[in-house]
Amino acid sequence: MSQTLFEKIIARELPGTILYEDDQVVAFQDIHPQAPVHVLIVPRKPIPRIAAATPEDQPVLGWLLLKAAEVAGRLGLARSGFRLVFNNGPDAGEAVPHLHCHLLGGRPLGWPPG
Amino acid sequence: MSQTLFEKIIARELPGTILYEDDQVVAFQDIHPQAPVHVLIVPRKPIPRIAAATPEDQPVLGWLLLKAAEVAGRLGLARSGFRLVFNNGPDAGEAVPHLHCHLLGGRPLGWPPG
Repeated sequence: MSQTLFEKIIARELPGTILYEDDQVVAFQDIHPQAPVHVLIVPRKPIPRIAAATPEDQPVLGWLLLKAAEVAGRLGLARSGFRLVFNNGPDAGEAVPHLHCHLLGGRPLGWPPG
Repeated sequence: MSQTLFEKIIARELPGTILYEDDQVVAFQDIHPQAPVHVLIVPRKPIPRIAAATPEDQPVLGWLLLKAAEVAGRLGLARSGFRLVFNNGPDAGEAVPHLHCHLLGGRPLGWPPG
């Protein structure tokens, strides 16, 4: 089976600036940052997208959100704030079929969110 | 203790177009929609924001993501796609201090997400 870009980054087969990792999730810098802080938090399990998640994924999804907020705090965004974004499918511009949470911060983020 | 707008909607003390609810989460239409589909999914538990969630909230956070995707599917967004957004703090424009997930779809969503 072919691996996605993110699986290769997680496996250190491709370079990536990894900021956090544990046995369930990995956080690394987006290579096309859209804000001073732009990090992707991904589950190690290659769930393609949120619409493909199943009830057995409930724990890792909750963990991913907790860790995204923790990474935001470590990166100094606790006071200024941050946005978490999940893209699913073509209208959202989903780019890599491995579930990922965009963490953006370090500047005011406009509304609507795209 | 004063309740947020969302607690009052959940309790039917304020009008809201509720699209889904169970014992853990409630989904209702955003009153200032930014896309043809714009729904908020909130936990019944009044967690102020994702940065205030604790490890005991891991299950409800995972459930919230699963149900957001399920609501998107019920609203016909399975093929066209959708975006999920969590705002935390001033830079993100967090408006109500009760954790909520914005579900947007029904049109192409630009990048960056704000």
